[in-house]
Amino acid sequence: MVQKLKRLKRELVKEGAIVNMYTDYIEMPDGRTVKWDFIEHKKGAAAVVAVLPDGKILMVKQYRNALERITLEIPAGARDSVTEDTSVCAKRELEEETGYVCGKLEKMLSLKSTVAFCNEFIDVYLATELTPGKQHLDEDEFVDVAAYDLTELCEKIYAGEIQDAKTVAAILAYANRIR
Amino acid sequence: MVQKLKRLKRELVKEGAIVNMYTDYIEMPDGRTVKWDFIEHKKGAAAVVAVLPDGKILMVKQYRNALERITLEIPAGARDSVTEDTSVCAKRELEEETGYVCGKLEKMLSLKSTVAFCNEFIDVYLATELTPGKQHLDEDEFVDVAAYDLTELCEKIYAGEIQDAKTVAAILAYANRIR
Repeated sequence: MVQKLKRLKRELVKEGAIVNMYTDYIEMPDGRTVKWDFIEHKKGAAAVVAVLPDGKILMVKQYRNALERITLEIPAGARDSVTEDTSVCAKRELEEETGYVCGKLEKMLSLKSTVAFCNEFIDVYLATELTPGKQHLDEDEFVDVAAYDLTELCEKIYAGEIQDAKTVAAILAYANRIR
Repeated sequence: MVQKLKRLKRELVKEGAIVNMYTDYIEMPDGRTVKWDFIEHKKGAAAVVAVLPDGKILMVKQYRNALERITLEIPAGARDSVTEDTSVCAKRELEEETGYVCGKLEKMLSLKSTVAFCNEFIDVYLATELTPGKQHLDEDEFVDVAAYDLTELCEKIYAGEIQDAKTVAAILAYANRIR
């Protein structure tokens, strides 16, 4: 029977900009102590499936340093603070990255991105009743915006052209919902 | 127009057991230099949607230290080495965690779990023609196995009871495929 494991100690290794690294000392059921990596995401995040009146979905292209490539993702970003409601974060990130303001916002999914070693969470929302406005990116942010048909996005997922896990989960959840 | 950003330097902060932490120095298009966290996952991983002859899907329950909770996930695990083919890893992890051997294995998805700061990838396979065998877990691994209907798993995703991103993406991809 699976049970909670006892953490004997959590040692801070390094405080980063958006994550902190720790070494955890875990007591195994057989009495051994093992050392596991733990990456703490400082703020958590929100992401948005934003559907235009014509049914197309807003996507952002951006360069991802961790992957050394340009990715196609749904709009998303970290919370401003640990107390920010993720629905507020979702609206803000949608407007910052795409310029669009949404009239209706609905929670679709709660995701944990990397359960093996990190506590990052991403709440995924469905945004509709969109009206165009002006993009206003953070100073470290450079993104292109484009709208795609749902069918095309699903094809890109199955072809391996979209690999970002939150985007894959969010688009497939939306596809399941409306089909 | 989005373009590749130039990385001026990558500094190793700490070598961990399954991940390494780095500080990257990135040159912005406007000339400024910014410091970004980078978490290198050492091995990459594979995960498996394993479908029994009766249509039920094999799931594992395990305690996740990073989340401080017991999760319900598809079978998955890191590669033994950076040269291991993910299909080999998928078969091995399925057998280790559930005891089942698959007759047929098919690639479904390529996922990047945490594009904002980590390079972890997870290849997701569909395993069928399953025959039962004997579970043989790693010494740090304690999991319970159970089989669920696809409909029940989708309900658990929408209710927020399953949040693991690879599991959400994989189950919804399978649901989209057979519906």
